[in-house]
Amino acid sequence: MQDNQVVGIGSGSTIEYAIRRLNERVINENLKTICIPSSYQALRSLQSFESLQISTLDRNPEAYVAIDGADEVDGDMNLIKGGGGCLTQEKIVISCAKKVVIIADYRKDVQKFGQSFNFIPIEVIPMAQRPVLEKISKMFGGKPVLREAKQKAGPLVTDNGNFIIDWFFDKDKDYDWNEVNISLSLIPGIVETGLFIQTAHKVFFGAADGNVTSRGNDKL
Amino acid sequence: MQDNQVVGIGSGSTIEYAIRRLNERVINENLKTICIPSSYQALRSLQSFESLQISTLDRNPEAYVAIDGADEVDGDMNLIKGGGGCLTQEKIVISCAKKVVIIADYRKDVQKFGQSFNFIPIEVIPMAQRPVLEKISKMFGGKPVLREAKQKAGPLVTDNGNFIIDWFFDKDKDYDWNEVNISLSLIPGIVETGLFIQTAHKVFFGAADGNVTSRGNDKL
Repeated sequence: MQDNQVVGIGSGSTIEYAIRRLNERVINENLKTICIPSSYQALRSLQSFESLQISTLDRNPEAYVAIDGADEVDGDMNLIKGGGGCLTQEKIVISCAKKVVIIADYRKDVQKFGQSFNFIPIEVIPMAQRPVLEKISKMFGGKPVLREAKQKAGPLVTDNGNFIIDWFFDKDKDYDWNEVNISLSLIPGIVETGLFIQTAHKVFFGAADGNVTSRGNDKL
Repeated sequence: MQDNQVVGIGSGSTIEYAIRRLNERVINENLKTICIPSSYQALRSLQSFESLQISTLDRNPEAYVAIDGADEVDGDMNLIKGGGGCLTQEKIVISCAKKVVIIADYRKDVQKFGQSFNFIPIEVIPMAQRPVLEKISKMFGGKPVLREAKQKAGPLVTDNGNFIIDWFFDKDKDYDWNEVNISLSLIPGIVETGLFIQTAHKVFFGAADGNVTSRGNDKL
């Protein structure tokens, strides 16, 4: 890491550790780091570290690196994201980063999606939820369901004011995830999918014993 | 028109006439018609006609027909929509209709986009507006601008709480609008584009002298 770099900050419990480590380095090495949060969670977490500067894509539309988590990483470095309800802003921030680094625990390292996580989170415009549910099951099989909130009545509402459909895909099918992502993205009412197709450059997996393995570009 | 049909209702000044005519027929022929509005404007207009029932895609996810306006209709029956700021909900409602009927004035009848209307409205997640502006001009040329509000400070906010980018495309280029629409839809942060690719089945154009011409499926 160098001085004056712009860093996209993802969401999820793993990212909390990354933010803490980033803060240590910024203090120890006397660096200036500009962080772009990709959720209210990331924003709030960043706000608790005074040494980390916070910015927006309005001011800094290009990031040197984005650091984020994932719910699963397949053999082609495709990701499923959005288990924690944050995916649209994460995909936006990642799309503005030159390098994308993913941190996940070893159970998320799979050859084929569906080993440890069996659904694709999809953000939808509220009025479209029912027709989108029907279109997804007609087009791709499996079982799409509207995600319910636990701390309020009715559906979960995202940071963007939308709903989330969790599409439990058919694990026996061999999906072409790139094709699925394009087809889903073209369904009116779908804002963004939790399929991140070949966006990651490097993925680090933490094992239970504390060891770290990685996949992807070794120069990162 | 028959009894008990579900009708998607678009937005814009032309649609006001269609709603009035629909109401007349419902009263005169003693029909029951279930209307799905695709904007606050359509909802408010429908609410002023007590004979028209109002519903949602949650209750009625399939419409027999959608009636809507357009800003331009090209020789391939592609539409530009969203000049009035409503496009996402319209695209959702249209995607749920078996038949799509467009009403427009004769100036919107063009062979190639850009004769009377020279931009594509695009709905974006607010935090993504600047990187999306930059990506559009890099990918497709032309000049994308964030639409400003007139009755409030800052950008216009849509019925879905998002912003609109008006992309003034390069009129000298021969765009493949289907390809452009797919590429735009895959840019993270773009919710929906104002390009409606071959969704219309029939378009009626009203001339200045009161005559009506049409294009598309004659059975409608």
